[in-house]
Amino acid sequence: MSVCGTTCPFSLNQATPSSPQGQTIGQAAASAYPGRVALVGAGPGDPELLTCKAARLIAEADWLVHDALVQPAVIAMARRATIIPVGKRAGNPSARQSAINQTLLDCARQGGLTVRLKGGDPLIFARAQEELDTLRAAGIQVDVVPGISTAQAAHAALALPMTARGHRRALVLATPQVQAEPATAAITGNIPPAPSPAHASPYLSGWAAAVAAAGSGSLYMAATIADQVRHLLLDHGMPAETPTLWMIDVSLPTQAVIPGTLGTLSRPPADYAGRPALLILGMQPAIIP
Amino acid sequence: MSVCGTTCPFSLNQATPSSPQGQTIGQAAASAYPGRVALVGAGPGDPELLTCKAARLIAEADWLVHDALVQPAVIAMARRATIIPVGKRAGNPSARQSAINQTLLDCARQGGLTVRLKGGDPLIFARAQEELDTLRAAGIQVDVVPGISTAQAAHAALALPMTARGHRRALVLATPQVQAEPATAAITGNIPPAPSPAHASPYLSGWAAAVAAAGSGSLYMAATIADQVRHLLLDHGMPAETPTLWMIDVSLPTQAVIPGTLGTLSRPPADYAGRPALLILGMQPAIIP
Repeated sequence: MSVCGTTCPFSLNQATPSSPQGQTIGQAAASAYPGRVALVGAGPGDPELLTCKAARLIAEADWLVHDALVQPAVIAMARRATIIPVGKRAGNPSARQSAINQTLLDCARQGGLTVRLKGGDPLIFARAQEELDTLRAAGIQVDVVPGISTAQAAHAALALPMTARGHRRALVLATPQVQAEPATAAITGNIPPAPSPAHASPYLSGWAAAVAAAGSGSLYMAATIADQVRHLLLDHGMPAETPTLWMIDVSLPTQAVIPGTLGTLSRPPADYAGRPALLILGMQPAIIP
Repeated sequence: MSVCGTTCPFSLNQATPSSPQGQTIGQAAASAYPGRVALVGAGPGDPELLTCKAARLIAEADWLVHDALVQPAVIAMARRATIIPVGKRAGNPSARQSAINQTLLDCARQGGLTVRLKGGDPLIFARAQEELDTLRAAGIQVDVVPGISTAQAAHAALALPMTARGHRRALVLATPQVQAEPATAAITGNIPPAPSPAHASPYLSGWAAAVAAAGSGSLYMAATIADQVRHLLLDHGMPAETPTLWMIDVSLPTQAVIPGTLGTLSRPPADYAGRPALLILGMQPAIIP
């Protein structure tokens, strides 16, 4: 992979990654040149929706470790960094989180600035905790630069307020996974677990109770489980006539909008399979672009 | 007021504002030179947290209509615009929304690009609907550019994820007004009202039900009603030991953090009176800066 005139000397598929100089990463001058890491939001896709700070840090980075959903035009803003793709859609098998953590440690120990670039905001549905914990445990300085999250860009594209004075005092963003996951207490031990609503496990539907209470919300990563999302939200008392919008490829030239209602919600048509999809509930724009 | 070498030829305090050329705004060449308006997020305060697009539009703007919380360093990024301060902290009496709407119409009808700059994200707790409705009704093109909201910048400053895989699937931002407000159906008529939870009016505590269901959240504009917020959230079953953080002047050099718990929540100390305060509930950072 060649970006901005640099080549990627190693990837997560290599057992013993090496630096541009052929050194084995993580062994050379680790303590003599301690590096720092910035977790940076790449925004929703449109490179102009990066923050000025994100753009600066990408340009200054020595190492750029990015998710697959980060747009090539954003990666191309790196002026000198070694580019290290990780993530599930990079055309490689999914990088395990432990391997990503190790890559960040390796880069930081090489010295200089490592930018860990995540789609959207790095602290929203981006599994930042594990990376933060790993870097802190190693004594490495970590900064975070926020990014525009997909729901923000989607509402901006629709000119649709996420809140309204009087009517909509709460804004909910959620990921509607419907299966319990292995406990991650060791990783998220500093965040107390959410209290269980009386009627359901928070692992299954705490998000649904929050969306139903607010009467609206934006759901990330809901496309493949749209049927379960519909059932859970109806079970939580959300009206069947609640308006829904699938937003595909938010902020990109290929952006598409598919309106409907909760009662008949299903996954986006097959044409959109594999493309990032956001589900907006309980909101209707004046104009659908 | 002089910013960037331009002077402000009119303000909302003048009954008949005039353009730099002395024309009466809203009468000159309205149809011959239709303007366009961009509702733009100014982010949380730090100018580097503007999006690249926001920075570009501010530089290109002919008219810059800004809230009082927008930082002078952001306003100074305007290269050619006439600067028009509106908003409650501008040192003037609060501009009524109807007067702001009229100012935007007047600017747009002068032609060129009007940037309506709002702190944070223009679609989150920013009363955008009324301005959008006004401009659309007049046939004026309106675009929206999202911004980093205060809660995002606060969590970034704390390196504190807003969500966590498994434990925190929903992120709630809310404004805890505790009094019913006049109906705004005419303004927000295209957004269906939130369903009433069984136990409370949504005008009073729909936001609290959403926060309690999620087990965490960020509350905007809560400082002066901290006692009511505490009561309502406890009433909704949120544990008294829920951690709280007041974040003052998020992203600015004067940023301050005041940790506590829900059971003893009160407004920030008098030293912080009048400074923007965000309340983070249910989250504890590894390090408090």
